[in-house]
Amino acid sequence: MNKIRVTIWNEFVHERENSHVAKIYPGGIHQTLATALRPNTELAVRTVTQQDEAQGLSSQVLDNTDVLVYWGHAAHDDIKNEAVDRIQKRVLEGMGFIPLHSAHWSKIFKRLMGTSCALRYREAGERERIWNINPGHPIAAGIGDYVEIPESEMYGEPFG
Amino acid sequence: MNKIRVTIWNEFVHERENSHVAKIYPGGIHQTLATALRPNTELAVRTVTQQDEAQGLSSQVLDNTDVLVYWGHAAHDDIKNEAVDRIQKRVLEGMGFIPLHSAHWSKIFKRLMGTSCALRYREAGERERIWNINPGHPIAAGIGDYVEIPESEMYGEPFG
Amino acid sequence: MNKIRVTIWNEFVHERENSHVAKIYPGGIHQTLATALRPNTELAVRTVTQQDEAQGLSSQVLDNTDVLVYWGHAAHDDIKNEAVDRIQKRVLEGMGFIPLHSAHWSKIFKRLMGTSCALRYREAGERERIWNINPGHPIAAGIGDYVEIPESEMYGEPFG
Amino acid sequence: MNKIRVTIWNEFVHERENSHVAKIYPGGIHQTLATALRPNTELAVRTVTQQDEAQGLSSQVLDNTDVLVYWGHAAHDDIKNEAVDRIQKRVLEGMGFIPLHSAHWSKIFKRLMGTSCALRYREAGERERIWNINPGHPIAAGIGDYVEIPESEMYGEPFG
Repeated sequence: MNKIRVTIWNEFVHERENSHVAKIYPGGIHQTLATALRPNTELAVRTVTQQDEAQGLSSQVLDNTDVLVYWGHAAHDDIKNEAVDRIQKRVLEGMGFIPLHSAHWSKIFKRLMGTSCALRYREAGERERIWNINPGHPIAAGIGDYVEIPESEMYGEPFG
Repeated sequence: MNKIRVTIWNEFVHERENSHVAKIYPGGIHQTLATALRPNTELAVRTVTQQDEAQGLSSQVLDNTDVLVYWGHAAHDDIKNEAVDRIQKRVLEGMGFIPLHSAHWSKIFKRLMGTSCALRYREAGERERIWNINPGHPIAAGIGDYVEIPESEMYGEPFG
Repeated sequence: MNKIRVTIWNEFVHERENSHVAKIYPGGIHQTLATALRPNTELAVRTVTQQDEAQGLSSQVLDNTDVLVYWGHAAHDDIKNEAVDRIQKRVLEGMGFIPLHSAHWSKIFKRLMGTSCALRYREAGERERIWNINPGHPIAAGIGDYVEIPESEMYGEPFG
Repeated sequence: MNKIRVTIWNEFVHERENSHVAKIYPGGIHQTLATALRPNTELAVRTVTQQDEAQGLSSQVLDNTDVLVYWGHAAHDDIKNEAVDRIQKRVLEGMGFIPLHSAHWSKIFKRLMGTSCALRYREAGERERIWNINPGHPIAAGIGDYVEIPESEMYGEPFG
């Protein structure tokens, strides 16, 4: 069977501009994610960033991607509408799309949802417990009842 | 316009058997609920209980009900399957159905959902904050961001 | 109770440019629709067209609209993105939106759906039978099992 | 990888009682279905019928089934509620369930849906064209735009 072609796209801004973040993600968040996924031999993983040609989102890259993992936060406004058009086209063709963290607020996620994609949050540094509410879904395989993050921002409804 | 015919059905067990509960709901939970709804002049409110004829769920009652508010907890197993059949038939004909509290575990709710209707809970006595996640829905009119209960049991996913 | 403020927006191109269509809708499709709705005293109906100021879709108009009925076909590309932004904002605030006919292909409908909004069709001149598949919904009140159009284009899945 | 354990359950009434049907399905519909699925080496296919022990739906069978393909029509009332309980339990545990033909009207399908599961039909002997409305779903792989049956009963909404 052909491998699932996973492209990890990272905005790659905080890691270059903030030394604290750089220390946590020395190669960028995309490398940390890729390192976690590469042991899975069903996947062919590559990484691109907003600093690459065509912002890392060329037709050549997207047409050879089965699942796009997308991390964005600070530079949403810099993404060109043409790149958004290309991602949307591929999602409608069947490409998987996993928006991470503040990618809920990205141009492409708003485009796909048609809604504000706003949510509530507070900087809390509190323990976050993320419940596994659909344990039968393949993406939840091997996860127990919940995942905990010791100190986290808090997010809340309404979202959409 | 015709009034909306609301029937409040109450199991009416705890209030008769537990003096602590009886003090909080002297006429039964059904009366407390009815008192809250009666000022709304668009509604014609009546109450029935499991102690009434046909367990309060006769065809005569149900056929004259537009919305059934249903509170149950301790006596689910005593409800006859024929009564469940009659409620289900009316829901499929368009009757509204609002199951309160442990009615998630009632025969009729399980019948309508087709699932286990199980959930998690713990007796906690903690503050419960119920967020208003669909503020545009008519049933949420006039409610702010959330409702709080000072001391409550806690419920959790998976539910279904 | 306040009336429901209905705004009927019409592209108003075919009726001005095609004498055959003009004969069928002498005042434009918007007037035909308004004439049908005005007997309903719960509604306050007004009409605007793409030829009006701000393409008929100014903030002033939209902010005073509870339900927007929208008919478009030939001039989707002429609608300014700013007008689309204003409609989307109002829909997310709760305004009802009823896109008629080829408005499935309008900028605003695509914006709200996030999908291609494409469908199949053929010019057939055949009898179309539209089934009432949700007879309990208020918008279907008084409609029987189906509505028939003697000669119609035919539409098909996939839509979305 | 373990094979997907497919159990094909057949009521097996028409094939035994009607010589015309017996000629079309000499071994029963279950054998025809099994013959179609067996070339797929990812599947481990077995068949059972309502004439088998525990109506073919014992815990032993169900606990070793990943996907249940279920064909019923004339003998729904004969299925014991205990068998329905066992299937429902397994579906809620994650077993796949594919009800064929009149299994829409079976006890287990009604149990899972919580609705009437009624639909409209007429004996027509007309050409039926079944459109592939979700071509991206794995179960539709290799199917083109539609499948046609030269002479068929016709079914219609409302269904549910």
